[in-house]
Amino acid sequence: MFAPVDEQMIHLRRGASEIIPEKELERKLLRSRASGKPLVVKLGCDPSRPDLHLGHGVVLRKLRQFQDLGHRAVLIIGDFTGMIGDATGKSKTRPPLSLEETRANGQSYFEQASRILNPDTVEIVYNSQWLEPMNFTEVIQLAATCTVAQMLAREDFAARQGCGEPIGLHEMLYPLAQAQDSVAIKADVELGGMDQKFNLLVGRALQKQRGQKSQVCMLLPILEGLDGTEKMSKSLNNYVGISEPPDNMYGKILSLPDSLIYRYFELATDVDTLDLPRMKVFAHDCPRDAKHALALTIVRMYHGGSAATAARAHFEQTVVRKRLPDQMPEYRPEDAANPMGVLSLLTQAGLTRSNGEARRLIQQRGVSIDGKKVLNIALRVNVAARAPFVLQVGKRRFVRIVA
Amino acid sequence: MFAPVDEQMIHLRRGASEIIPEKELERKLLRSRASGKPLVVKLGCDPSRPDLHLGHGVVLRKLRQFQDLGHRAVLIIGDFTGMIGDATGKSKTRPPLSLEETRANGQSYFEQASRILNPDTVEIVYNSQWLEPMNFTEVIQLAATCTVAQMLAREDFAARQGCGEPIGLHEMLYPLAQAQDSVAIKADVELGGMDQKFNLLVGRALQKQRGQKSQVCMLLPILEGLDGTEKMSKSLNNYVGISEPPDNMYGKILSLPDSLIYRYFELATDVDTLDLPRMKVFAHDCPRDAKHALALTIVRMYHGGSAATAARAHFEQTVVRKRLPDQMPEYRPEDAANPMGVLSLLTQAGLTRSNGEARRLIQQRGVSIDGKKVLNIALRVNVAARAPFVLQVGKRRFVRIVA
Repeated sequence: MFAPVDEQMIHLRRGASEIIPEKELERKLLRSRASGKPLVVKLGCDPSRPDLHLGHGVVLRKLRQFQDLGHRAVLIIGDFTGMIGDATGKSKTRPPLSLEETRANGQSYFEQASRILNPDTVEIVYNSQWLEPMNFTEVIQLAATCTVAQMLAREDFAARQGCGEPIGLHEMLYPLAQAQDSVAIKADVELGGMDQKFNLLVGRALQKQRGQKSQVCMLLPILEGLDGTEKMSKSLNNYVGISEPPDNMYGKILSLPDSLIYRYFELATDVDTLDLPRMKVFAHDCPRDAKHALALTIVRMYHGGSAATAARAHFEQTVVRKRLPDQMPEYRPEDAANPMGVLSLLTQAGLTRSNGEARRLIQQRGVSIDGKKVLNIALRVNVAARAPFVLQVGKRRFVRIVA
Repeated sequence: MFAPVDEQMIHLRRGASEIIPEKELERKLLRSRASGKPLVVKLGCDPSRPDLHLGHGVVLRKLRQFQDLGHRAVLIIGDFTGMIGDATGKSKTRPPLSLEETRANGQSYFEQASRILNPDTVEIVYNSQWLEPMNFTEVIQLAATCTVAQMLAREDFAARQGCGEPIGLHEMLYPLAQAQDSVAIKADVELGGMDQKFNLLVGRALQKQRGQKSQVCMLLPILEGLDGTEKMSKSLNNYVGISEPPDNMYGKILSLPDSLIYRYFELATDVDTLDLPRMKVFAHDCPRDAKHALALTIVRMYHGGSAATAARAHFEQTVVRKRLPDQMPEYRPEDAANPMGVLSLLTQAGLTRSNGEARRLIQQRGVSIDGKKVLNIALRVNVAARAPFVLQVGKRRFVRIVA
């Protein structure tokens, strides 16, 4: 039923920053293969931000890889923990949400995540199911498993404490509450971004305390945004939303720095793991083409193949227009009041050496006016009425026609 | 119904270290007097230590004073918070107790406290009543009222953090849980030892958060133990238990340093507040007599008048024996083989100048053998059989009779 462990590991190691501990994952996979019992793979999601982008997609893709290998994907909607509001990586306490709000966000999260996961086999659970019925005594027993110093070791807590920014006491319950999720579903593996490392390790420790086998923590990198440096996030406006229209997606990805093309292939696409080495060479040798291939792949993943092709065409059309140089030569025809033939206009403006060359270029679809191809060699242009406009030959030669 | 506020304040200020804020207590008393509605006075007790001593008695006596002034005394048995185990003033996390253990301790606490309180009017409540049903959501909302930094400001937490001693995360829930007690009973005043100042102020803040009038915090000193320096505590063996037998109590109090006699009168007895200035002079001028008066008072409070008188007598008898000087003259009768008259023995040993003086002293009950009064002037003593023994005249003259 399951692929050999070595083969599974090739897919599972893809893009992972840390697997704690990797040997234990291999042992779990071995046992799973021997018994025919799939691993329980947990991904907890904080539904306080309802809009998913490619950054969120990184862990979701990893969960999908586990699904594709035959394991059980359990998506935990943190409707309860969302009420606490995890401040991981944040510098401030979040305003608490109500259970209604977190559940509504959770529903939307699931709908979006279904574009990445295999929705037929993913198990969705809301953590309010086991956290809400916990009473004060059980919370005390939970809190007693951890010391204040251990909590304050979390980077963002330490930073906030260091600069005197208040940390609500309830925020320290967050890592424990989400750790309880691992106990509740008996997770074998938990996935998370590198910023979740602390929380995932708390889950690992709590399971041990509760007499369970500890989960393996698999940490994925934080995807850089389109600016190439900052973490992808909505507030920095450097993101590609997974529900964005195809044209937007395509255009945004084309603005990615070349240095990130391969990283996006590895972390944000369904390109076969075995093809990745080839993509690396491709991205290095032909970044422009590789970036188009990346954009095509990502739009195809979220919107299908024909939407991807259409997005590419739309991009070519609009972006070429956008890519006019700021400075270009101008030409003012002597008799602008009368419509003139496009062939003479090309030659007079200095873009062709003869009307014959102009004709050939038009027939080869190499001429356009304001980004729109000129297909008719007999076209007459009313310069006085239409100017200013851009007359273009090939990709790089432009003249602005003025009256 | 209620005494004038000024008069009440004389009793309430007695021994108090801090009243936060004092003006607010006066206003509450004024309103109470105007409306005829007694104040709700809270004393929370941690039933993790079931044996009460005079140190615990200090706050219980203050609660009794409120009772005597007509106010409502609410004794909160912290059966629930006892499970957390407050570590106030401790340098280590306490081992948690079960609800059964804390309730059993609570019952014993109440029985002992009844020796100080007026048991007919005191209201006993177990805080598990409102804390046990609290769910995780409510605990989060409770925890959110406080920051980690505020908690770490508590002296003992700060000290433990400073020296790397672990603080269980659950311990930070303790101050909030007992603060919830104030909200539950709508306390007007909470009593506590100075070491409880932080916790009491958390109660004051939480009531405000919950839209209630904030309680006044009345802080009492920590009573020094019999060594005169350390806090009274069982583990330091410098304590007087309130359930100790009269003789033990009496004897222990007589070992108190003179400097503490007045402090004990003020904090540990029911001597009328208006008589305290006189007791101060008494303790200063005649510490020996004042200490006996203190011991009598305390034994009388816990065991009744006749037990107190008996304890005094027992003390005189045994302690005088114990107080034999280490060095004393010896006398060896020449003819020890024959029984000899007690009168001649006294004179020969040099304790009396004549048999006539010896007879008078015996008739005045001034002579004893090994601490036991000699009442028979015709007594014949078989020195050879009985020696060595101590022959004593008055309080300070001894001779050791040897054979």
